[in-house]
Amino acid sequence: MKTVKIGLMGFGNIGTGTYKTLEMNREIIKKNTGMDFAISRILEKDTERERGVQVTRDQFTQNPEDIFKDPEISIVIELLGGIEPATTFMLEAMKNGKHVVTANKAAVAANYDLLMDTAAEHGVLFKFEASVGGGIPIINALTSVLQANDYMEILGIVNGTTNYILTQMTEFGFEYEDVLKDAQVRGFAEADPTADVEGIDVANKLSILMALAFGIRIKPEEIPRVGITGITKEDIQEAAESNEKIKLIAAAKKDVEGNIEYSVKPMRLPADHPLAGVSNEFNAIFVRGNAVGELMFYGKGAGPLPTGSAVMGDVIEIARKTIL
Amino acid sequence: MKTVKIGLMGFGNIGTGTYKTLEMNREIIKKNTGMDFAISRILEKDTERERGVQVTRDQFTQNPEDIFKDPEISIVIELLGGIEPATTFMLEAMKNGKHVVTANKAAVAANYDLLMDTAAEHGVLFKFEASVGGGIPIINALTSVLQANDYMEILGIVNGTTNYILTQMTEFGFEYEDVLKDAQVRGFAEADPTADVEGIDVANKLSILMALAFGIRIKPEEIPRVGITGITKEDIQEAAESNEKIKLIAAAKKDVEGNIEYSVKPMRLPADHPLAGVSNEFNAIFVRGNAVGELMFYGKGAGPLPTGSAVMGDVIEIARKTIL
Repeated sequence: MKTVKIGLMGFGNIGTGTYKTLEMNREIIKKNTGMDFAISRILEKDTERERGVQVTRDQFTQNPEDIFKDPEISIVIELLGGIEPATTFMLEAMKNGKHVVTANKAAVAANYDLLMDTAAEHGVLFKFEASVGGGIPIINALTSVLQANDYMEILGIVNGTTNYILTQMTEFGFEYEDVLKDAQVRGFAEADPTADVEGIDVANKLSILMALAFGIRIKPEEIPRVGITGITKEDIQEAAESNEKIKLIAAAKKDVEGNIEYSVKPMRLPADHPLAGVSNEFNAIFVRGNAVGELMFYGKGAGPLPTGSAVMGDVIEIARKTIL
Repeated sequence: MKTVKIGLMGFGNIGTGTYKTLEMNREIIKKNTGMDFAISRILEKDTERERGVQVTRDQFTQNPEDIFKDPEISIVIELLGGIEPATTFMLEAMKNGKHVVTANKAAVAANYDLLMDTAAEHGVLFKFEASVGGGIPIINALTSVLQANDYMEILGIVNGTTNYILTQMTEFGFEYEDVLKDAQVRGFAEADPTADVEGIDVANKLSILMALAFGIRIKPEEIPRVGITGITKEDIQEAAESNEKIKLIAAAKKDVEGNIEYSVKPMRLPADHPLAGVSNEFNAIFVRGNAVGELMFYGKGAGPLPTGSAVMGDVIEIARKTIL
């Protein structure tokens, strides 16, 4: 049985979740694919942290060249986060003939064309399912089995932190600041929550979704954006009186002339809209195609194992397309 | 640009929806795939019916050999429905080196191994996304990007007729018989509704889902099955008093020893379960994987265009894998 060797860049929570997904499901994956997968090198400074996985000291390196130049490695997983050095590392991996998988929405949104073009130029595949919606396989659906559709509309709840805050405000009548503090204590919100609560993370994801569904390149900073910091419990009560729920929505819609209107902002959804029931840390993406009609994909938008599922799914798909 | 030629068997509602999906989205599909697709031959007796699509008399044939032996046709779409002659025709197409796409759950469930083995033996692809959940891309998800998971549970609302009846009973307090009659008048239920209301259609779909998710072959007739004919408005009221909804559920669950428990039966779901909000003709499939956690896929489970979207999605995937 062929063993596909993988280089992993970044061994934090998501890197560990990816490693764990492969470790716990190795036999299932072998059965499903007829291939074995091994993360043979890991770029990471922190070699001491207890991660609850079987890893040996000699798998670690602090030199990315050890991954780029390893002839046995065919796929590189980038989980460093942030635009740089992640983008440079992904490009370097491609230039060395490695297929690349990432969960990094900031890097993909900022450098979409550069990454896609470099992959094409070097004849490698570039996949980023985990960059939008965590474990939800929305990118694969949009770019494969739904491609007989003209996409008319995409509406996404694609940030778990803000959806958690809005859900708690809705269910318990709390004020924004109080829920945010509580979420920070519980680890559902970052110490600096700006990227989440101001909709910056959502704008990155919408930029990626629009590139895939509509073939347009809109930089995240070009997307009109309103976060949730101005939402009061009165706003939520007022919506509830009209049987509506307030959700932070990434929206892109094709108008009659074929132009795409897009925004990231809190929206009031009727309580019977499929997205209205998406609560707490869950994510969902609603898609309307001219043939398929309304679709919704729902699941965990973050977390080490759901994200690991998406990353390893991309790895498996690359191996299927290039190695078998 | 390469043109992929397709033979279509069956030109009823679903066949026409597939033809229309390709006709209305041909340019989008060309842009997405770099290939053109043409349904060049159609096996169908009724050449006169007005279908609202551009088709010429010489595309029709009443001889399946005209499709099997046409060297220009690389993909055959089977939309005749029923186990025979559909199965025989699919096998014959495969033996002639054609890839096969079908929406036919009865034929796939009845002859799963025979169809898969014959496809493998003749080096062709066999795809059946539209056989479960209509336009919802559940089969593609289970067999590709989610394959880094050990699937723990599948729960599906996969029959629009019964979900419509149960929804109307729940929302308006109607009795079963009255809603069924109304659904028959509106064309949402067949004159003979047995296959729907007794759960036979759902059992076919569960058999297919279990083969894909768990690798087990359970014939539809081996699945314990209860339909919805015994559900009264009192049952529904009683459930509502416990804040629950009754849905006809295809269920398969892995127990602690790794055995799969399965059934088709009406179940009471808590109102906040993701499947509880799936109303009327909509379908949804809930999947729990050991890495990804809870996922749900929601959309139109039937209808000419949603089904056409799934059929053409399979065609596009086959062309991508075999022709480019």
